Amino acid sequence: MRGEYDAELQQVTRLLVAMADAVRAAMSQATASLLAGNRELAEQVVAQDALIDNSHGRVEERVYGLLARRAPVALDLRLLVAALHIAADLERMGDLAANVAKVGLRRHPAPAVAASLRDIIARMAAVADRIAAKISAVLAAPDMAPGRRPADGRPAESIAVDAATLGLDDDEMDRLHEGLFGVLLGAAWRDGVEAAVDGALLGRCYERFADHAVNAGRRVYFLVTGRLPQKIGDLGN
Amino acid sequence: MRGEYDAELQQVTRLLVAMADAVRAAMSQATASLLAGNRELAEQVVAQDALIDNSHGRVEERVYGLLARRAPVALDLRLLVAALHIAADLERMGDLAANVAKVGLRRHPAPAVAASLRDIIARMAAVADRIAAKISAVLAAPDMAPGRRPADGRPAESIAVDAATLGLDDDEMDRLHEGLFGVLLGAAWRDGVEAAVDGALLGRCYERFADHAVNAGRRVYFLVTGRLPQKIGDLGN
Repeated sequence: MRGEYDAELQQVTRLLVAMADAVRAAMSQATASLLAGNRELAEQVVAQDALIDNSHGRVEERVYGLLARRAPVALDLRLLVAALHIAADLERMGDLAANVAKVGLRRHPAPAVAASLRDIIARMAAVADRIAAKISAVLAAPDMAPGRRPADGRPAESIAVDAATLGLDDDEMDRLHEGLFGVLLGAAWRDGVEAAVDGALLGRCYERFADHAVNAGRRVYFLVTGRLPQKIGDLGN
Repeated sequence: MRGEYDAELQQVTRLLVAMADAVRAAMSQATASLLAGNRELAEQVVAQDALIDNSHGRVEERVYGLLARRAPVALDLRLLVAALHIAADLERMGDLAANVAKVGLRRHPAPAVAASLRDIIARMAAVADRIAAKISAVLAAPDMAPGRRPADGRPAESIAVDAATLGLDDDEMDRLHEGLFGVLLGAAWRDGVEAAVDGALLGRCYERFADHAVNAGRRVYFLVTGRLPQKIGDLGN
């Protein structure tokens, strides 16, 4: 029975890895559509968000089933509750990618990103992509597989490092976000109200995307170490 | 043992009701501080957000304890998992209230809300308050108490009505949000870039606050009916 149970837990983890990959691709495509003014790609990102929402529902169904049928304890219980939280964060990250694509669609065929903001938006997108890649890697790490926890109870080096660097990535995102506001509220701003509002909303999407990713990372960290950092920021400090 | 267990479940529900009340008060005070330029009140809202975060942690601890010690099934299990989701939504609503207060603090002593936006912001705040009040009432309803579910398994009239009207409130919030963008991106806008960006960010805070509240309402609805609406919007349709 344990083998069957482990197989079911593994399926949950696999669904999460697939969600993380989908969310990463969605944000990457959303940014590409935004910067290139590619309407078809933007519409595709918006349409595919329903698939990510659907995956979220499937994680929930499986977790409910496992909780009800198996009454798990200890690490298994923590894995399942963490899976619910991580799936919720990933779904929200998908929504934020769709929001980025929608900002581009609202202005199409005019560009939604002012020339003076292109560089900083591209850098925020790069940090978002790096963070999403880490979430995916951490979820796919062998330590996440049931029964594979290191014998001494300490987290695998790779997960601890990824969790710690997520906090640093988030700090970098916060600095870029502040820099973005510095530009669009600065005295040199000549691109008007609409571009400033779009820039502010886009900045918020990338910043929230990173926050949710760090939240998900915090859950994985908790799962592996059994300790929950008091605040999100504590991960990186 | 069942009596003791019910008492523990009740404590979780009571914590959620207290969180909902705290979050409602926080957003109400944040709006008041914003519109009156009241710095002390805004700082108080920001400081008290830590208490809401703390309550979230306490809900999680209690739920983990109950899941591990009692291996609940059926309605009890659903209550506990829903409690985790609701607590996460309420925590985020507290963050959004703090964000509203912070927008006011950033501009203080200048007003953060342009005169042309005061009315629409006040109306968004009123809808947010109404929604938060419903979440609080639904959570505090006797049907939420363990073992009090109606014998026929159908939701109490009051909860079904509140759940349905939450969707309508959210629609109203979305219309106000669109109206806000209409004003600040309209040809008649004369209040400059900074006020437009602040207005857009504030609008997003109220709109997200309502979304999270509807999410929480959706969980309560699921809990009472056993059916999960496919999308948030389905609640009101």
